[in-house]
Amino acid sequence: MALNITQKLIECHRVSGGGLAGAPLALRIDQTLTQDATGTLAMLSLEAMKLDRVKTEVSVQYVDHNLLQIDNLNAEDHLFLESACRRYGIWYSRPGNGISHLVHMERFGRPGKSLLGSDSHTPAAGSLCMLAIGAGGLDVALAMAGEPYSTTMPAIFGVELTGALPDWVSAKDVILEMLRRHGVAGGVGKIIEYHGAGLRNLTAMDRHVIANMGAELGATTSVFPSDEMTRAFLESQERGHDWRELTADMGCGYDQHDQINLSNLEPLIAKPSSPGKVVAVREVQGEEIAQSYIGSSANPGWRDFAIAAEIVRDRTVPPGVSFDVNPTSRQVLQMLINDGRLGALVAAGARIHQTGCNGCIGMGQAPAIGRNSLRTTPRNFPGRSGTEEDSVFLCSPETAAASALVGKIRDPRTLDIPYPRLSQPAIPHLSSSLLEPPLPIDEAQKVALVKGANIKSLPEFDPLPDELQMPVLLKMQDDVSTDEIMPAGARALPYRSNLQKIADFSFERVDPTYVARARAIGQKAGHAVVAGKNYGQGSSREHAAAAPRYLGLRVVIAKSFARIHRQNLINYGILPLQFLEPADYDRLERDDALRIRDLRRQLESGGEILVESSKVTIETQHGLTSDQIETVLAGGVVNLRRNNRRKAA
Amino acid sequence: MALNITQKLIECHRVSGGGLAGAPLALRIDQTLTQDATGTLAMLSLEAMKLDRVKTEVSVQYVDHNLLQIDNLNAEDHLFLESACRRYGIWYSRPGNGISHLVHMERFGRPGKSLLGSDSHTPAAGSLCMLAIGAGGLDVALAMAGEPYSTTMPAIFGVELTGALPDWVSAKDVILEMLRRHGVAGGVGKIIEYHGAGLRNLTAMDRHVIANMGAELGATTSVFPSDEMTRAFLESQERGHDWRELTADMGCGYDQHDQINLSNLEPLIAKPSSPGKVVAVREVQGEEIAQSYIGSSANPGWRDFAIAAEIVRDRTVPPGVSFDVNPTSRQVLQMLINDGRLGALVAAGARIHQTGCNGCIGMGQAPAIGRNSLRTTPRNFPGRSGTEEDSVFLCSPETAAASALVGKIRDPRTLDIPYPRLSQPAIPHLSSSLLEPPLPIDEAQKVALVKGANIKSLPEFDPLPDELQMPVLLKMQDDVSTDEIMPAGARALPYRSNLQKIADFSFERVDPTYVARARAIGQKAGHAVVAGKNYGQGSSREHAAAAPRYLGLRVVIAKSFARIHRQNLINYGILPLQFLEPADYDRLERDDALRIRDLRRQLESGGEILVESSKVTIETQHGLTSDQIETVLAGGVVNLRRNNRRKAA
Repeated sequence: MALNITQKLIECHRVSGGGLAGAPLALRIDQTLTQDATGTLAMLSLEAMKLDRVKTEVSVQYVDHNLLQIDNLNAEDHLFLESACRRYGIWYSRPGNGISHLVHMERFGRPGKSLLGSDSHTPAAGSLCMLAIGAGGLDVALAMAGEPYSTTMPAIFGVELTGALPDWVSAKDVILEMLRRHGVAGGVGKIIEYHGAGLRNLTAMDRHVIANMGAELGATTSVFPSDEMTRAFLESQERGHDWRELTADMGCGYDQHDQINLSNLEPLIAKPSSPGKVVAVREVQGEEIAQSYIGSSANPGWRDFAIAAEIVRDRTVPPGVSFDVNPTSRQVLQMLINDGRLGALVAAGARIHQTGCNGCIGMGQAPAIGRNSLRTTPRNFPGRSGTEEDSVFLCSPETAAASALVGKIRDPRTLDIPYPRLSQPAIPHLSSSLLEPPLPIDEAQKVALVKGANIKSLPEFDPLPDELQMPVLLKMQDDVSTDEIMPAGARALPYRSNLQKIADFSFERVDPTYVARARAIGQKAGHAVVAGKNYGQGSSREHAAAAPRYLGLRVVIAKSFARIHRQNLINYGILPLQFLEPADYDRLERDDALRIRDLRRQLESGGEILVESSKVTIETQHGLTSDQIETVLAGGVVNLRRNNRRKAA
Repeated sequence: MALNITQKLIECHRVSGGGLAGAPLALRIDQTLTQDATGTLAMLSLEAMKLDRVKTEVSVQYVDHNLLQIDNLNAEDHLFLESACRRYGIWYSRPGNGISHLVHMERFGRPGKSLLGSDSHTPAAGSLCMLAIGAGGLDVALAMAGEPYSTTMPAIFGVELTGALPDWVSAKDVILEMLRRHGVAGGVGKIIEYHGAGLRNLTAMDRHVIANMGAELGATTSVFPSDEMTRAFLESQERGHDWRELTADMGCGYDQHDQINLSNLEPLIAKPSSPGKVVAVREVQGEEIAQSYIGSSANPGWRDFAIAAEIVRDRTVPPGVSFDVNPTSRQVLQMLINDGRLGALVAAGARIHQTGCNGCIGMGQAPAIGRNSLRTTPRNFPGRSGTEEDSVFLCSPETAAASALVGKIRDPRTLDIPYPRLSQPAIPHLSSSLLEPPLPIDEAQKVALVKGANIKSLPEFDPLPDELQMPVLLKMQDDVSTDEIMPAGARALPYRSNLQKIADFSFERVDPTYVARARAIGQKAGHAVVAGKNYGQGSSREHAAAAPRYLGLRVVIAKSFARIHRQNLINYGILPLQFLEPADYDRLERDDALRIRDLRRQLESGGEILVESSKVTIETQHGLTSDQIETVLAGGVVNLRRNNRRKAA
């Protein structure tokens, strides 16, 4: 049978399940990735599991999110993470080494391997033909402990690329075109596999841009073949030996098809405040901007900064525009220093920020209210920039640089300069001083964890009772993101290891009265929330499940769920139910008292779950595997593991 | 009569007063400098004064403090400051252009001119033989409006420098030696004038280091001659035409004398948590560090980064050490890019931060609690790093770089490399895109101020009643800094234009119950505080006066005051009284009810002010000029100007 690449990768890592789309699937995980915002909880979980050493081929802890250090908390988390890496046999990528996705690609990515990462942009590694999936920190901790990753079999969405990108159009415009066509839910439950003759015109780094922002389509991941472009990338990193060819069989099939002729693309831009609101740049040309921002894992490569540098070379940004440049990794920064392009950016008026995620995650560079900010970042959910009522556009580095020069949105094709042809310089040899390898096991076992006062153990949670009676505290629209459930940014994220404290930020953008109302009812009595489609899209941060759970959230009823967040809900013992009939969404209101009887029996029967309110009874479905049912009923994955240990003892 | 340089500078700018040390003195101000943390209040004051255009030769607004932008507030302040500069004829140095003190030296400093700056390190410009004084934002606003600056005649402290610095010892060690000898109050009421044959071995940038940290001695300012070194600096900046010779007359005298033989100095370090706790580096050698930090206005020049780069070249920083590098200005950054030294720092593992004050003022890079941080910054007051219970040492870039390499405090003389000899590269020609010149007046008059929602007008304050009855809410020790009265850092400073909000941070490091107790009594009823020596040392930020005033502070009784803070108290209508008998400090306690009768009569009599408590009556002195008396009684400088306008009308 002719297989596509996704099928080969899944088959290679399948522990159990598989088959039709939607069926349970358990995968062997070769590599894991954690970043600091999600990593502290993952490391605390390893501690709770009494793990001696990770069982993966490679596990890497990156520090790229919380770099601002406005007080002791972040520095203390860094020390904790470093100690946990030394204890458990994990690579530690220090602050300053760069954004996880790019550094992982530079140093660890290997075609044919599986990667589970506690960051929603983990699929970026699909650019190297990895099966790279984002998940909650608890899931990644389990993978580090050697357990398979449980998910459902995705549908495989084949996208054929033909042609070659015109001048001034780049990989960002390819993924923006995908978002224009399919929207932010267009990839839910799917793996997007790119194929076709157009691939020979896309470098591995171009593919990173496309695979990275596949997360914005809601896709489980994106996959590219491992071909000569992949080899060229690995050889440039002195890792040619890690290359192997991996391509689709002739005549393989896909569950869904689309086709993009790269030659026909033009510069595109996503308007505020969704990556799905894509239009041609020329349609919004002339709108004033106060900021242009180059960086993040969505446009991470040397090339993305170099093209911006060539566009602004010998010119200057006008008054009123902040031109912010965030080099992605230490390697990229060094290349830009060496080839003079960092100098060209500075000369044009760029503000150079430290290597890391920074403003992409609301860590600095937040714009003024109501002023347009152009960014090469992957997301523009409301408030993600750090500014409530922000106005963030997403675009390519070409568009961001061209616009910076005039203080207005500008189609880069209208610049009066020839298109800059770049040839990539050699990758500089960098010492590993910011990337610490795992310790030998005998040394590791002597390492004590370094825990600052803000690093708290997870609280214990109750099991889910068999009869639920609780009010609906929120009724939300479609596409509520985890940024809206639990904000990132410098106010909340420093408390990521302190659930009691970070819980105060829950849903603050949706309804600032939620926390007080939830606390009034109490964790034990509990409450439910109702949502529209694609609930929990965006970042994988599991605090968006754990913090509301701490405040008493037990049930979410939605038209549909984003994959990672749904699993995070389950992991923390929150029951995710889907309306059988989407129109029933209109029959539930805030403050309705809900009742669910005989929960275990209903769940195990595999049929609908009846949810009664004082006015109506509606049908919902759960789609939980038997493992997931046990997890939810136990009150979360930590309780389940503890119960299982007790049974075994 | 043979005059020293200070006397010449004062004579040149004297509007009235002068003579003996301590006598009132009014000075003409040629240039002003504001930074963003203090500048918004200054600009709001210009607006309140209905000023049409500044009357100084040069006024520059820098944006260097609040660069993190974790929400909309800072970006909105930047837009406000830019609009105010355009409106009032002020240069605007944009975010990314660098720290005020270095950029001012590079672009505007002129021997023989006077400079008033709303930043306590303004005296750095004494390195170019300017009479450069730090003051509150209101004072600087008055100077921009053309009014003379009122102060008192300083004593002149002549320090003779001989010899030449040994290898591995640099300008920072000179000023640390001054602090070792004289402590943080050793310069109070004085101008320090450096002279002697050793000067020919100190570049203008070396002198900047010394003059900058003269603020840590409490000095009004520091002064260097304008000589061939000064000329060389200005010529390197293509401003040779701004040079004029200005030296002391043969046989001039000083009020106080000291002498330092540079050849005898060794690497020095200030221990936590005062710049005055200076010891030899060798005395603390071997103590573990978690951070080494190069940057700030205290070690701002290309040379300070270049020597660090040469020390770490081809080596790497070990695990557990964060090596933070904050380039000072865009010019310095460009030089370090061009000469490859930024690359050497990155290769060694440095984290490169955006150009500006950053961690020096608690804006990022805060260390973990209890972990030693080595910094080339000017101050290590408790908590200034952003971390409560921090442990910050101050040292030279040589010591910081040498220590970074081993993760322990290390005397750089013990390194096994030859002392790096540096030759400064040419200053690159930089566009002025981040330094906007004043608009022509006809354009300026059309500019509207851009005010975000967080930019609030100053509240109105009551005059001081003639009989005061109020409790003592705090009793403090010696050397309480303005950082302790009103913290800097990313939590508080974004509210610098919103007194009601920032008041919540008042004295939080001294006593977290203060704000609630003050609010309980109320602004109208008022309260007093008692302090030891050198009250209000450190930063010039006037919020340390304005915010407690908003909460009801009316009287401060101290053993002595830091100069700038005392004037800020007066400007906001708070009465600064000094114990006539320092031992009386022990006779006042927290919660004592104080009474002062016939205040105007007592003040105008020029004699002691009697302060009665239920147990004792103590004598205090005020030392206020008649202008200052009127200011305090009116309730502050804004009230006084309004009253005077009414009288005139």
